[in-house]
Amino acid sequence: MSGLDVDASSNGRGSDDWYRSWTHFRVARSSAGYCRVTFGHPPINTITATTVAELAELVGLIERDPDLNVVVFDSASPDFYLAHYDVENDPSRTAALGVGPTGLPAWLDVLVRLSRAPVVSIASIRGCARGAGSEFVLACDLRFASRENTLLGQFEVGIGVIPGGGPMARLARLVGRGRALEILLVADDFDGPRAEQYGYVNRLIADDRLDDEVEAIASRLARFDHEAIARTKSYVDEVTLPANSELGPPLDDFRELFGRPAQQAQWARLQELGLNADSDLERHLGKRVVEVMPDER
Amino acid sequence: MSGLDVDASSNGRGSDDWYRSWTHFRVARSSAGYCRVTFGHPPINTITATTVAELAELVGLIERDPDLNVVVFDSASPDFYLAHYDVENDPSRTAALGVGPTGLPAWLDVLVRLSRAPVVSIASIRGCARGAGSEFVLACDLRFASRENTLLGQFEVGIGVIPGGGPMARLARLVGRGRALEILLVADDFDGPRAEQYGYVNRLIADDRLDDEVEAIASRLARFDHEAIARTKSYVDEVTLPANSELGPPLDDFRELFGRPAQQAQWARLQELGLNADSDLERHLGKRVVEVMPDER
Amino acid sequence: MSGLDVDASSNGRGSDDWYRSWTHFRVARSSAGYCRVTFGHPPINTITATTVAELAELVGLIERDPDLNVVVFDSASPDFYLAHYDVENDPSRTAALGVGPTGLPAWLDVLVRLSRAPVVSIASIRGCARGAGSEFVLACDLRFASRENTLLGQFEVGIGVIPGGGPMARLARLVGRGRALEILLVADDFDGPRAEQYGYVNRLIADDRLDDEVEAIASRLARFDHEAIARTKSYVDEVTLPANSELGPPLDDFRELFGRPAQQAQWARLQELGLNADSDLERHLGKRVVEVMPDER
Repeated sequence: MSGLDVDASSNGRGSDDWYRSWTHFRVARSSAGYCRVTFGHPPINTITATTVAELAELVGLIERDPDLNVVVFDSASPDFYLAHYDVENDPSRTAALGVGPTGLPAWLDVLVRLSRAPVVSIASIRGCARGAGSEFVLACDLRFASRENTLLGQFEVGIGVIPGGGPMARLARLVGRGRALEILLVADDFDGPRAEQYGYVNRLIADDRLDDEVEAIASRLARFDHEAIARTKSYVDEVTLPANSELGPPLDDFRELFGRPAQQAQWARLQELGLNADSDLERHLGKRVVEVMPDER
Repeated sequence: MSGLDVDASSNGRGSDDWYRSWTHFRVARSSAGYCRVTFGHPPINTITATTVAELAELVGLIERDPDLNVVVFDSASPDFYLAHYDVENDPSRTAALGVGPTGLPAWLDVLVRLSRAPVVSIASIRGCARGAGSEFVLACDLRFASRENTLLGQFEVGIGVIPGGGPMARLARLVGRGRALEILLVADDFDGPRAEQYGYVNRLIADDRLDDEVEAIASRLARFDHEAIARTKSYVDEVTLPANSELGPPLDDFRELFGRPAQQAQWARLQELGLNADSDLERHLGKRVVEVMPDER
Repeated sequence: MSGLDVDASSNGRGSDDWYRSWTHFRVARSSAGYCRVTFGHPPINTITATTVAELAELVGLIERDPDLNVVVFDSASPDFYLAHYDVENDPSRTAALGVGPTGLPAWLDVLVRLSRAPVVSIASIRGCARGAGSEFVLACDLRFASRENTLLGQFEVGIGVIPGGGPMARLARLVGRGRALEILLVADDFDGPRAEQYGYVNRLIADDRLDDEVEAIASRLARFDHEAIARTKSYVDEVTLPANSELGPPLDDFRELFGRPAQQAQWARLQELGLNADSDLERHLGKRVVEVMPDER
């Protein structure tokens, strides 16, 4: 651990690496202690191999910055926080990401390292965050969400696969068995009030207050002692984080189940209906996912 | 695991074994994926050795059915879901149940196998569910309850015994230490709003909407891929279910404490006051249980 | 375990040891099964080495009393339940407390033994309980709080230290990772409604009903069988309590971080502004703690 004697000559804005040109988000470092990352990958902020690669680089910067106390992740789109993963019809792009420093595949690696970093990560949620988007917010330390405009969900079981990015491990510990099973198995959308009731998010904030309140929380955290944050968080980490070994097997299951012809066909039909576009399907994915199921009735 | 290639010729209604004549519930299999079990043991749906034996058989069918995705448990009585255990003044009947496939005594065996089955179990709760009735709903995966007409509770400590069917293990993990201790030690009734607030149930549904909403959830689950459900659930099981070894010792304690003369006398007085009948005592058991205590004041 | 055959000749009021003259609380034993402890250390019920020494003695009495079922801890002050720890500008007093029977330093020892005692401990909370005051209520079994007049918080990270009395271990298990991290890292005050929403307390009770309702719960528990309470609680303890080994390292961290010059300076400035007195600072400590931070902006 470091941070007890930060060199003020670093001027609190981090190294030049923060200012490279990111493509799926922009980064604003308003003070030494505080960084804001705003997702912007139109039209609906899907997560692709490019997003994962950039997040992996960003998390490395977060881990190594001795001045940084807090990172806020928000979205430039009012309707989509992070829609879900888009394999871009080319699984080789995702496969090429390989494994990260933890030895886990890149997406899992990003989530694990973010959750263990000695920095407070805050998801400031407005719009839809499903699948990998939900997995991302679950890996953040704090989740604040728009009261009027939030939809969270793990829709994977609805298309015949299982979630690959760890939500079984995280939701089971966060909201308890019954509510975790409902989120994961019924696989429907959760609006803000139900997400708050279930503990899926810390709490709701009125949409027109969300940005200001999260800003106030982040500004407060930015002023705190880095070492106090890092050590306090590490003790909570020990009790609450899943072992890395829990996370790999579900991702293998996801790949196996997604590779089945029926699931490939469902995915193709979802794309025809508007998946990955700013569509009615995307805005009501939890409900509409059943439309593409083979009708056995 | 199976289910990837279900033979459609099974016509989705399960084997003939489902259609034997059950005495304490009836079974309706409306589709291959969905079964509804309705408790009907007038007047108040007590759980007896017969109920346990039938549930053990039913859980065996549930475990072995490759088509089944979801089982809903509801009640034919609007006032009593499952009142509690009734030893029928003959402990030998319960003793004769012996142990089940897990090696645990029959009641614990039923609950453990239901919670680990590759099928979603849903308790659709209307009326009173106390003692073993509460233990049953806690062993189900999802719990939806009537907003206006729900009473849950573990009244055992109120009569000088401890709950024997695992609620210490399950509630401690579901609702956290403080609320679990209140439910178990204060041993009073919990109405719907408080049960929802504490996480004792997933959530409330208005009484006149309960059946339809649970039906919609079950119908949705019935259409999903069996393997996706089974594997997703198994990962949550690993994190959230108690070890079988936790469950035996409290049942031994229950037997020891219940065998004491003072507890036998309390039980006899409760029976005189209306226990096991459709009585005012049963409708207000959490409050009235103290009436039969030896008054030491 | 004992209690099956309590000698009625003990008259149910405990030994004379209960009636020594306590200085930071008073003790009322209204029945064999029920004891009320009322904190009274004007002006704001700080916890000092004296409080810890007296609580250590009291917990010993609680552990050894075969008649006692329930202890309620409330406060003589309507505005302060237990403000926080006051080292009295003389760390040697705290150091002189040494370790308790568990081998842990005295404050941790008191909290661990209270949480494991075969007696139900209830915090009846009215007013502010921050820092060690919050740690105390988290070590109680049940927490009921005034709806209108409750402020809980762990402000330690706000002054550049970490909480030393175990709230990382307890909150992480009680309210889940996200909400525990918010309480501990944002380090702000939680009023009653948010404390209830997060599960920080069991539930709120209207201020003018709090005393009566807690009295009713305690009177009910006082009549129950001691053995039934003790065994039921012990099974919940096994699942929910942290290992003692989790608790020592954060206290070492607290001492290390608090010993830094910057933190000593912050503490001195807080004292100048009203810390340990009935002051505006104490009533709004969560917000005002940032006033004493070195301004780096």
